[in-house]
Amino acid sequence: MSQEIKGFSKLTKKEKIEWLSKSCFKNSDSAKKTLTQYWNFDSNLQKLHDEFSENTISNYYLPFAIAPNFLINNKIYTVPMTIEESSVVAAASKAAKFWMKNGGFKSEVIDSEKIGQVHFLFHGDKKILLEYFNYVKPYLIENTKEITKKMESRGGGINSIELIDKTTELDGYYQIFSTFNTVDAMGANFINSCLEEFAQTFYKSVSKFNNNELKQKDIEIIMSILSNFIPRCLVISSVSCRVSELNNLEPETKNFAEKIVRAIEIANIDIHRAVTHNKGIMNGVDAVAIATGNDFRAIEAGAHAYASEGKYKSLSKAHIKNGIFYFELKLPLAVGTIGGVTNLHPLVKLALEILENPNSKELMGIIASVGLAQNFGALRSLVTSGIQKGHMKMHLTNLLNKHNASEKEKESALIYFKDKLVTSSNVENFIKKIR
Amino acid sequence: MSQEIKGFSKLTKKEKIEWLSKSCFKNSDSAKKTLTQYWNFDSNLQKLHDEFSENTISNYYLPFAIAPNFLINNKIYTVPMTIEESSVVAAASKAAKFWMKNGGFKSEVIDSEKIGQVHFLFHGDKKILLEYFNYVKPYLIENTKEITKKMESRGGGINSIELIDKTTELDGYYQIFSTFNTVDAMGANFINSCLEEFAQTFYKSVSKFNNNELKQKDIEIIMSILSNFIPRCLVISSVSCRVSELNNLEPETKNFAEKIVRAIEIANIDIHRAVTHNKGIMNGVDAVAIATGNDFRAIEAGAHAYASEGKYKSLSKAHIKNGIFYFELKLPLAVGTIGGVTNLHPLVKLALEILENPNSKELMGIIASVGLAQNFGALRSLVTSGIQKGHMKMHLTNLLNKHNASEKEKESALIYFKDKLVTSSNVENFIKKIR
Repeated sequence: MSQEIKGFSKLTKKEKIEWLSKSCFKNSDSAKKTLTQYWNFDSNLQKLHDEFSENTISNYYLPFAIAPNFLINNKIYTVPMTIEESSVVAAASKAAKFWMKNGGFKSEVIDSEKIGQVHFLFHGDKKILLEYFNYVKPYLIENTKEITKKMESRGGGINSIELIDKTTELDGYYQIFSTFNTVDAMGANFINSCLEEFAQTFYKSVSKFNNNELKQKDIEIIMSILSNFIPRCLVISSVSCRVSELNNLEPETKNFAEKIVRAIEIANIDIHRAVTHNKGIMNGVDAVAIATGNDFRAIEAGAHAYASEGKYKSLSKAHIKNGIFYFELKLPLAVGTIGGVTNLHPLVKLALEILENPNSKELMGIIASVGLAQNFGALRSLVTSGIQKGHMKMHLTNLLNKHNASEKEKESALIYFKDKLVTSSNVENFIKKIR
Repeated sequence: MSQEIKGFSKLTKKEKIEWLSKSCFKNSDSAKKTLTQYWNFDSNLQKLHDEFSENTISNYYLPFAIAPNFLINNKIYTVPMTIEESSVVAAASKAAKFWMKNGGFKSEVIDSEKIGQVHFLFHGDKKILLEYFNYVKPYLIENTKEITKKMESRGGGINSIELIDKTTELDGYYQIFSTFNTVDAMGANFINSCLEEFAQTFYKSVSKFNNNELKQKDIEIIMSILSNFIPRCLVISSVSCRVSELNNLEPETKNFAEKIVRAIEIANIDIHRAVTHNKGIMNGVDAVAIATGNDFRAIEAGAHAYASEGKYKSLSKAHIKNGIFYFELKLPLAVGTIGGVTNLHPLVKLALEILENPNSKELMGIIASVGLAQNFGALRSLVTSGIQKGHMKMHLTNLLNKHNASEKEKESALIYFKDKLVTSSNVENFIKKIR
């Protein structure tokens, strides 16, 4: 069993591994070898990566892969994707290729407004509070000047600051609700710094406000934090083509285009399907987000919450009109092309270079297009041959690797499984048979 | 601008990089160096990682880090976490340390039921369809025997198969709704294989069903796929302690424990706060999920959709009763400790060994506990000093690295920023000043 340890974070990386070896591993030599074989031979580069997080002891590899041929707003992009799931990159590439021949993706940023809140309690007269808010508002802006200066020089800053009354929902609960333009940064640090300054100024300036009816002790600041729910930081990507073009793509499936429309209708009425439908979209979205150094938890939270407004639904839509198939994805995306780890992680810098150093709005369009491509790829498999055929074909190598298959064995397996079902047991049986 | 390319997936890794260099990079030598410096020196290991995804050209590093001192159900765990965001691992470790002294985490799996659906259209007499379903049900089970055999030997398999009428929501829409027990596997491939077999059998057996009123052409299978919405695959983790104990932890904050309760009440009534609140939980959840080779998009989708049932709310709860503070997290989690990449990725295998090779239910408990710890850490910062202080302290090294600070400069910075606000500009100014 693991033991309690004090001061773990203060140990050196080697000491941390030494402690782990003693307390967790049966074969500590092999465990140490596993951990250290992932270290980079360039010790400066390794140090940089060690310092991204606390208590780092090794590098976890995710595949850094490439999906070419994305035609978005009449420009061809080669898209870097970082994801562990087999078949995601292949599906994206395949979808991109088809849509390149059919006009490509059209993407548009509807709005890029970020949101932050100071949550506080106040049980006094609302009229006084409102008076105070109007009094203090200029100071909120003035006192954040040090923080906003640089952002303003880039064209961003604080957009609005409002007082919101939430007392009907929770006794005495109000918000300072603020919106921001963070230009090409995701903006979390900027927004949180502004909000914390708002909270301080809001609390401290009571003494300057010449009104006996308001005392500092009447205001209890609970917390100040940005919101990952950003329904007005939205991007749309869409594709369209003749129904006949789409049906020609899958000649063995009757009414392929209509089946896709039907599949999305189903996702709109059934939450069990909708969640998985959107999960498939996020396979593509997250893969580009990670490759470009963006926070995928923030994106996931915002996207699923957006999908759940009213009733949990599909993030994509499709319809057929006058022989034309329309397909679009609308989702909230807070991403940055500067700040965070974007300027730090060498592969993130390279990923952005592969995308020709887009600004954040362009990146929103790229990510949404990959999400839509992923959705198209998943639906295409689902309504035709089923998801397993393509997925297991891609997963076959993994299954063979599990049995330490040689290159020769892999070659035979690829031939053998060309027209047979790939399952974990079938691969196991095949390996047993040929050995 | 990137160019169109045909047959990209068929190129070797070197050829892929060669093409990228020509079409995307200004300085192709330096780009090539960046990509190849991340390759592992062990070419077999590199090949294994290349084969996880399609079109892989390099390894994307995420920090593989350690959060020790997690006392869960009276057992101490050392938890591997893989995440790029500064301060997540530090916050988890700090929270774990406090709760170890206060009884630790209690985790319990409520249920572990997985779900899958065959979606189909049928416009005929419902009575006939029901008759047919009852007729074909034994064949559905029988024909999946090859697939379920191994899972059954491990104690799992198909739990139930039902016909669901959704025709009031979409004309002619029905589901074969099935539940599964996938034991220690996440089970996606197993469930999808079963469902695709169900769909085939369901469609094909019409000819054997001796009833003129039902024809094969009356049934249109749309798709067969598992659901990532799994509200009955649930785990709870909770902690509790005396309110006085908690208040002693933050003596400078008045009513610290109550403030945490208030913060969660706010997350329950305000979606802007709730989404970010849950995002913080997922920082911990995903970090362990990735380290243990689990699909974090599936977990994210399931968790946020679960949070959104009725109205989007906090996944965690807290209350104070008789001087005791109770805090719990309930969330759906489909995770595996076998299958997928768990037996393939050497660091995933090691991560599971660090956790003493848990089964999937134990892993559910560990992940939920880390999620709760993360939530505690975030709320602790938020209602006391604010999130930025701790976060920026952890991010300081990243900001220094951005300016290529030397070790000596870093040391001075750590001293200088001990009592000063860390912002991107302040760090830039500091570096300019000392150089």
